[in-house]
Amino acid sequence: MSTHTTPTTITGVRVVDVRFPTSLSADGSDAMNKDGDYSAAYVVLETDGPLRGHGFTFTIGRGNDLCVEAARQRALPLVGLAVDEVLDDIGGFYRRLAGDTQLRWLGPDKGVEHLALAAVMNAVWDMAARRAGKPLWRLLADMPAEELVATLDLTYLSDVLTADEAVEMLRATEPGRADRIAVLAGQGGYPCYTTSAGWLGYSDDKLRRLLNEAMDDGYDYVKLKVGADVDDDVRRLRIAREVVGPEVRIAIDANQVWDVPEAIEYLARLAEFEPYWIEEPTSPDDVLGHAAIRRAVAPIRVATGEHGMNRVLFKQLLQAEAIDFCQIDSARLASINEIIPVYLMAKKFGVPVCPHAGGVGLCELVQHLSIFDYVAVSTTLDDRITEFVDHLHEHFVEPCVVENGRYTIPAAPGYSAEMHESSLSEFAFPDGSYWAASRAALAS
Amino acid sequence: MSTHTTPTTITGVRVVDVRFPTSLSADGSDAMNKDGDYSAAYVVLETDGPLRGHGFTFTIGRGNDLCVEAARQRALPLVGLAVDEVLDDIGGFYRRLAGDTQLRWLGPDKGVEHLALAAVMNAVWDMAARRAGKPLWRLLADMPAEELVATLDLTYLSDVLTADEAVEMLRATEPGRADRIAVLAGQGGYPCYTTSAGWLGYSDDKLRRLLNEAMDDGYDYVKLKVGADVDDDVRRLRIAREVVGPEVRIAIDANQVWDVPEAIEYLARLAEFEPYWIEEPTSPDDVLGHAAIRRAVAPIRVATGEHGMNRVLFKQLLQAEAIDFCQIDSARLASINEIIPVYLMAKKFGVPVCPHAGGVGLCELVQHLSIFDYVAVSTTLDDRITEFVDHLHEHFVEPCVVENGRYTIPAAPGYSAEMHESSLSEFAFPDGSYWAASRAALAS
Repeated sequence: MSTHTTPTTITGVRVVDVRFPTSLSADGSDAMNKDGDYSAAYVVLETDGPLRGHGFTFTIGRGNDLCVEAARQRALPLVGLAVDEVLDDIGGFYRRLAGDTQLRWLGPDKGVEHLALAAVMNAVWDMAARRAGKPLWRLLADMPAEELVATLDLTYLSDVLTADEAVEMLRATEPGRADRIAVLAGQGGYPCYTTSAGWLGYSDDKLRRLLNEAMDDGYDYVKLKVGADVDDDVRRLRIAREVVGPEVRIAIDANQVWDVPEAIEYLARLAEFEPYWIEEPTSPDDVLGHAAIRRAVAPIRVATGEHGMNRVLFKQLLQAEAIDFCQIDSARLASINEIIPVYLMAKKFGVPVCPHAGGVGLCELVQHLSIFDYVAVSTTLDDRITEFVDHLHEHFVEPCVVENGRYTIPAAPGYSAEMHESSLSEFAFPDGSYWAASRAALAS
Repeated sequence: MSTHTTPTTITGVRVVDVRFPTSLSADGSDAMNKDGDYSAAYVVLETDGPLRGHGFTFTIGRGNDLCVEAARQRALPLVGLAVDEVLDDIGGFYRRLAGDTQLRWLGPDKGVEHLALAAVMNAVWDMAARRAGKPLWRLLADMPAEELVATLDLTYLSDVLTADEAVEMLRATEPGRADRIAVLAGQGGYPCYTTSAGWLGYSDDKLRRLLNEAMDDGYDYVKLKVGADVDDDVRRLRIAREVVGPEVRIAIDANQVWDVPEAIEYLARLAEFEPYWIEEPTSPDDVLGHAAIRRAVAPIRVATGEHGMNRVLFKQLLQAEAIDFCQIDSARLASINEIIPVYLMAKKFGVPVCPHAGGVGLCELVQHLSIFDYVAVSTTLDDRITEFVDHLHEHFVEPCVVENGRYTIPAAPGYSAEMHESSLSEFAFPDGSYWAASRAALAS
């Protein structure tokens, strides 16, 4: 052979601090987070060919710079390596990046360092799906079980889930996968609910209008923020019930504002409106607290997980029978490597996974996770519903498409994580054009 | 009045990335952390008077820069304020710093952001003790109960500990405090054990020599690292028992290397050496896992906490009866504000607190905590013993003094957290003289 191709190499990592001024409009406001500026620590793995990998973690403003720097440091060991070397051993490279013991001390597996690992591994998986020419959900559904399990982080999980069990569980779903993909396509995609109507900072009139719009858009499931003031919440839930009627499910979300006894007392006041679930009633770390609340407030069901720091927390939430719904976050858990183990554990315990979304780009990511779950893990849509929040999608090259209360199935290669260069140059912090103009206006 | 004094003002915050090249000598090596460079994100709160506040968090190298930047950001709201305004309302300022909701998203209460908060609040408490002209343990022991409780972070704890209970518990110990201080002074200080002998990277000969030295130094309690290889551990424990005899307590420490079933299996092999406790048998986040291990390995007792991320984790470790010893870390929990609630909860559950120490400066801090615990919380020394590791003390202006297996009672004002300027200029990373010379040597 006189010719050979030079393998494509990862030549660099670019990390951008992107911040959107959402605090100005109270989009995303809740009882805990009144003035978030939705932000991303956005990672691009660059190569000497056309292939790229895009990923991010989501934050709400200050401190996003720390995630950016942490992601840059985490990704450095990948620079200079052949793309195929990394993508053919994603499990090995995950362990290499996650296993830096000096960085591990800063967690382990939590906080800024873990968010940064999520951003980097999200970019690796995006790159893997692009290399395969498939949307990520499809890449995962097509992977042989052993190969997929070899990528998973099962550390500290073997009392609940071993690698052998994971392989068996995935193999068992292989026969029906094509049928389930057809089912989803036939019904227009994966079911979702909307949180767009219920932010705490909205007026009663805006709440009423947005709920009416949600009904017109075909939702049979909405979510309201609660927890700042019980009388206000009673009034807002009464309005919501009036607008949506008795059949539509209304979930409520307290964003961690209560202690355990407070949660139980407060929820007694809201029970008459038959909330479908109470989300984040207390500290995301309080496994036993969630279990106590769940026992006390039944039949209201308990959901949590958007701040669930790692797989070990989810293992315990399941072991302690603390939750009815498992709300993993695609940018807080360390990407597919850590997320699929949670899906598998949740299946073992019979708990539906209903991913957290919203923020920046979380909807783009979780559509892949929910579809993969139905096709290859849970094999059911019962009690499964994924969050959808309708803002900031315009910054993505392949935004998710929601119609009639369903995420349509993404077809483009990758993890749908790529942002427009124009958005980056406008909202990069602190020197993008938006922020520079904002500072200039303040100074004048 | 024709004169008035200008109040002393906090004029700035200086944060230094200090790293010591401990990986070169395998000091601190264990089954998880083979090559740590013991480091501190070191905070100095500066004023326009002679008063300073010194604090730090401890890390093991890479990523210390992130803690430095996070601490700098956390401390900024204090700059420009009157010292008295801050120190007369430490609880209020803790809540203001901890309550930044944008930064909270990056945890909450865990990882880099929480380590940084610990560093800043440690400096605030050091400054408070210096202003009072008292060592910190004494400042705390002299504070009226309501005043001390007003500084505490009791968020998410009310199912176990309310503010009223905390006041009652502290009031109840007031009558005997002077007596207990006299008792401690009379017996030469607070009892400690040494980990200096048992690092995993040491040879059998060095282990034997150091254990003999520990016996000569009056210790009746030592600790060995385990968990890398069970046959090695059997050999090392056999050596240890030969050297120290049957009476001296030998604790063992696995530094999180096992899954739950592995821990149980591995410990069955080591039981014949009658370890006093097994420390960190698995993930620090795994409350239910520790409880399962504890049930399985009794009478070996279970200790954990040096990676315990926050008060909510400790609450659950106690609720789940997962631990026999509670090993809080003075640089991982958010200083006195979060540490005292853990001491109070541990007292309620009858679990002794035996703080983690070692690292950089942790011994300097925990002597204050242990003395305060005895004087004002637990009122007993039964099963209480505090870690001591004999390195890096030379970098502190007022290093802890250990004699005959006891921390002598610190008398100088403050939290013993101040480092020598010469140490900072030598070991600041990356531009201190040590690191610059090290790079130059590598380059030549």
